Amino acid sequence: MTFKVTILGSGSAQPVAGKHHSAHVLNVHEQFYLIDCGEGTQSRMLRAGISPLRLNAVFISHMHGDHLFGLLPMISTLGLLGRHTPLHLFGPKPLDEILDFQLRYLDTQLPFQVQFHEVNTRIHSCVYENKVMEVWSIPLRHRVPCAGYLFREKNPPLNIRKEIVDRYGLGIAQCVAAKRGEDIDIETDHGKQTLPNTEITYRPYEPRSYAYLSDTLYSAKAASLVQGVDLLYHEATFADTDRALARQTGHSTTLQAAKAALTAEAKQLLIGHFSARYKNDETMAAEARTIFPQTEAATEGKTYSVPPHFHPFHKS
Amino acid sequence: MTFKVTILGSGSAQPVAGKHHSAHVLNVHEQFYLIDCGEGTQSRMLRAGISPLRLNAVFISHMHGDHLFGLLPMISTLGLLGRHTPLHLFGPKPLDEILDFQLRYLDTQLPFQVQFHEVNTRIHSCVYENKVMEVWSIPLRHRVPCAGYLFREKNPPLNIRKEIVDRYGLGIAQCVAAKRGEDIDIETDHGKQTLPNTEITYRPYEPRSYAYLSDTLYSAKAASLVQGVDLLYHEATFADTDRALARQTGHSTTLQAAKAALTAEAKQLLIGHFSARYKNDETMAAEARTIFPQTEAATEGKTYSVPPHFHPFHKS
Repeated sequence: MTFKVTILGSGSAQPVAGKHHSAHVLNVHEQFYLIDCGEGTQSRMLRAGISPLRLNAVFISHMHGDHLFGLLPMISTLGLLGRHTPLHLFGPKPLDEILDFQLRYLDTQLPFQVQFHEVNTRIHSCVYENKVMEVWSIPLRHRVPCAGYLFREKNPPLNIRKEIVDRYGLGIAQCVAAKRGEDIDIETDHGKQTLPNTEITYRPYEPRSYAYLSDTLYSAKAASLVQGVDLLYHEATFADTDRALARQTGHSTTLQAAKAALTAEAKQLLIGHFSARYKNDETMAAEARTIFPQTEAATEGKTYSVPPHFHPFHKS
Repeated sequence: MTFKVTILGSGSAQPVAGKHHSAHVLNVHEQFYLIDCGEGTQSRMLRAGISPLRLNAVFISHMHGDHLFGLLPMISTLGLLGRHTPLHLFGPKPLDEILDFQLRYLDTQLPFQVQFHEVNTRIHSCVYENKVMEVWSIPLRHRVPCAGYLFREKNPPLNIRKEIVDRYGLGIAQCVAAKRGEDIDIETDHGKQTLPNTEITYRPYEPRSYAYLSDTLYSAKAASLVQGVDLLYHEATFADTDRALARQTGHSTTLQAAKAALTAEAKQLLIGHFSARYKNDETMAAEARTIFPQTEAATEGKTYSVPPHFHPFHKS
């Protein structure tokens, strides 16, 4: 039931001592997903105690080095470590071309396949799904084609309310039908009656979500596409006083990130990707909090959990 | 008069927590040279307080990722920082091709030139020189074309022995000629006499040298090409018990590195590039010391100075 993200790197392009380039690892039900892969990501993963062998898929937002330069080194190491499971790689073109070219120069044949899935950065669509989660692309507005990603748990299977089963003496077939979402017909003293599914079942918890929006100008559209997100990471490369620079470079300010969180009705906002010119992350977070109080500056190495909100009927 | 090398990374290909991929920075008379550039080198330089803007030239030994993956990220950052001075890049082909391809995908035009100089890894030749130093390629024996590098101070200019000038009343023109290395004719009571240059001048100090031999099988030829080197870095990926593995992978053992130092009559040996299977660097160094006592395991972040050996006539 895990749903948590570990920030491996939250710096912007110009390196700063003690900060690292963009990379987040999302753990959803003990399946691991890497989001962006700046230089040094594999070493940051080691330090966070997450083996790159455990990665199911990698999602790259755009073709800028500070989001990308760690990918080939990590793939190369996975080869050394003898990975056999295919690695799914999502991102805009020409990521596949860049990677193919570089892999040709590696001394050894990779013992696993890198399966590239092109992400169209102009379209909001489901790019990946498995039993428990979907990943949606979020078109962003940067200097080059850029996609954010929304990771959303699927609805958990319906639970049966045991007291209802007992009260009406429901059989196994009826319970199975109810779990499928069907209403159930029962015989009572007053004749046939239909029990609406909502009376028999409940969702044990609300699906949780994490959105990664980096790098981008403020986009009301992107914010609306992650409506109701539990945890929103939004870049905030500049302070409000430097909003002209933000516009010029295709980035957001602290206040714009906060505005996006407000528009999205996010539960919590993490900001990062601060320009090297700002020395104090806390000042940046404080600025964003004037608009969106549930803001925190993303701390490298820290893991942010989204606990499940259980239904009142749920007994863990 | 500085001559020192800072070890930024001394790990081998498989990443290990707390170690980094190959990268050494050599400081010769406050000119900076980078030797190999594994992933994360720019961040290691920041930590060592050496700005990549100060680099004159980069020397790459071979096309394996753990010696190379930090190059494009560093060049990209130099672009961001607005470097204008050309950066000289030495290494075997197809380093230029790899770099050109990748640079095409960078969003911005670099404001400086990367001047590539091909190093023929089969030939021992002077690949670079300036007023105070020469760099020689050292053919190595690895799985792919690979060059080591010998960095050697040039002979410092001759100093004049003031007491000789006074004794014979030498004029300025005679002193200038002596500094050029000429013998000097003087008139004495006994007629014309020739003062040999060695009586008038001395070299203030012996030229110093640093050799970087990584990655390679033991090579008596390479060792002989760095004859008399002050500080020798030699890879020692494997312990002696694993010498079969060393041979198979084109690497050296601790004892082979020590043997190379012995053959080269090196003053001091640094070993590194230890396989991730060995947990204790000191055990590796101890093994090498059984053959070559002046051995140390290269410590990341540490700077190794080669102090000048001044001529007895020299007054600093």
